[in-house]
Amino acid sequence: MKKHEETIQTIRPLDPSLKPQVQAHLDDLTKPQGSLGRLEELAQRYCLIQGRTQPQLGTKRIYCFAGDHGVAVEGVSAFPKEVTPQMVFNMLAGGAAINVLTRHVNAELVVVDMGVDAPLENAPGLCHRKIRGGTDNIAVGPAMSREEAERALAVGIELAETAAREGVTMLGTGEMGIANTTPATALFAAYLGCPVEDITGRGTGIDDHQLAHKITIIKRALAVNHARLSDPTEILAALGGFEIAGIAGLVLGAAAHHLPVVVDGFISTAGAVAACALCPNARDYVIFSHLSQERGHRMIMQALQARPVLELDLRLGEGTGAALAMSIIEASVKIYTEMATFSGARVSQKG
Amino acid sequence: MKKHEETIQTIRPLDPSLKPQVQAHLDDLTKPQGSLGRLEELAQRYCLIQGRTQPQLGTKRIYCFAGDHGVAVEGVSAFPKEVTPQMVFNMLAGGAAINVLTRHVNAELVVVDMGVDAPLENAPGLCHRKIRGGTDNIAVGPAMSREEAERALAVGIELAETAAREGVTMLGTGEMGIANTTPATALFAAYLGCPVEDITGRGTGIDDHQLAHKITIIKRALAVNHARLSDPTEILAALGGFEIAGIAGLVLGAAAHHLPVVVDGFISTAGAVAACALCPNARDYVIFSHLSQERGHRMIMQALQARPVLELDLRLGEGTGAALAMSIIEASVKIYTEMATFSGARVSQKG
Repeated sequence: MKKHEETIQTIRPLDPSLKPQVQAHLDDLTKPQGSLGRLEELAQRYCLIQGRTQPQLGTKRIYCFAGDHGVAVEGVSAFPKEVTPQMVFNMLAGGAAINVLTRHVNAELVVVDMGVDAPLENAPGLCHRKIRGGTDNIAVGPAMSREEAERALAVGIELAETAAREGVTMLGTGEMGIANTTPATALFAAYLGCPVEDITGRGTGIDDHQLAHKITIIKRALAVNHARLSDPTEILAALGGFEIAGIAGLVLGAAAHHLPVVVDGFISTAGAVAACALCPNARDYVIFSHLSQERGHRMIMQALQARPVLELDLRLGEGTGAALAMSIIEASVKIYTEMATFSGARVSQKG
Repeated sequence: MKKHEETIQTIRPLDPSLKPQVQAHLDDLTKPQGSLGRLEELAQRYCLIQGRTQPQLGTKRIYCFAGDHGVAVEGVSAFPKEVTPQMVFNMLAGGAAINVLTRHVNAELVVVDMGVDAPLENAPGLCHRKIRGGTDNIAVGPAMSREEAERALAVGIELAETAAREGVTMLGTGEMGIANTTPATALFAAYLGCPVEDITGRGTGIDDHQLAHKITIIKRALAVNHARLSDPTEILAALGGFEIAGIAGLVLGAAAHHLPVVVDGFISTAGAVAACALCPNARDYVIFSHLSQERGHRMIMQALQARPVLELDLRLGEGTGAALAMSIIEASVKIYTEMATFSGARVSQKG
């Protein structure tokens, strides 16, 4: 059996039997019941994901998956393709936004080459998992073979396994890949049935003319690959990116190892949607970090009945929203574990 | 001249002349322009408040002001009045939500007795600034004298001065005071003209019957004190709380010392509104941390044309929302100061 199939078989929905005990503890903390709103909700989810009424905090880690996209030749991005490896080097040197934010929230950052179109063998600190130097152009055919998609999924799963073994208790997703809002949008259309016009946005900053062109390209990708959109893995292979498939694998691996996985913005959401299409039970382990300013993300969050933790108008990717949300989730767990109880602190209850 | 009058005279609106230089730096960072959304906006505000293009980060400190309210006898709160001193002790012992969150974001916490109805002389670590052991019942007359309101304002101002002297670069507000959503709501009605029915909420958790009663009490407070609602200081004295006046003073002191002041939820907003009524220029220094779940806060934020940083359905107070937002603001400043530039990192610009 293939790696991702094996993994999927082990993923269970959350066990709700712990809920009353977790809720009782939250209600005994020295605050009016429910007054910490989403922090209480996040703490509860964290407990259920770990399957413990006494949750443990450990290392937080973001995997930032990088990959190039054949569809970039269609002129769908404001930035040239060389920016993908340039930004990989920037991240390895500590100068990107995600470096600043992972340092700020005390999370580890691992940059993974899933398919950058540049020789990165000697890049120091890079995690080498290149499937191929970029996908094929989805406007003329499939992005990758089914076998490549499965290998990319396996990479994400194995990284989650490594993280679990190394004491990581919260995973975050991030990505870097010029033109990757195009495959992400195509994936949303294929998996969720969202209308392409409604969910196609400006990515790193294209103008009206380029936006209309991008919509045409995405529709063409869906038409050209129509016959291949038969099952979740084929959809991922036809329209995906290597970094997006890596994210999907990470989500599956996180779910299999009872780790919360904090999903960044628009692109990362596409990876999470792929994972949930492959394994609906994985949804319970996903926490959407922020509502991206990229057009369409709101509609997609609604389709997923998800309410992201933050809404800061971010549209950068890399894991930036995930990093900030991980700190809020960690705070929620500390509320659960560190606050005094009414009885312990001799505080009077509601009259 | 009185302390707060002296202070108000020194408060200047932000100098917009630095804006182009700050914006140019933000646009040179290795990310698509504007892609960090509100983080960029917060970093810019921080620079303008400090009046520097190279902003400095130092200590973050939250002052949590505590006070009791005569109007508690009217049965407007779900919790008994003894909870105010009990929660003060809980905070001093490190067991309250605000302790957990200030530790999490590495902020200092100072708990200030502005007017708790209990002998707290020997409470270890408490900042003793008691004006009086609780306000009078606003449903039958003014909460305090004008002179008391002025003393409470001076306390907040002096604490901001102390903080500035001690290297604090970001202030946060918090409060504890059973029944204090009642005076806060009355203040919003008086300062902003909001209809009482629209902005009166359930505080720590009252039922429908108690909510109707609370609305009656607030309307009575406004009617009984009608003749006194002639100027901003009189409004504060007639309807305020000692902790709310302390917060108003802290906002004025922060503005005078070019410190950003991160305002917590519903009650803290009342203090900020009082400060801005006394000195409209102070508004530039205020950052609203979160949209409270307390009914009315959304309307009040709209009236102030403010968009809070977070929306986590919190309704606890203490400074909990401020603490979390302070960390986001700090992250925004690090983005500004720590990220690589396009030229420095040899990353290609937009095509």
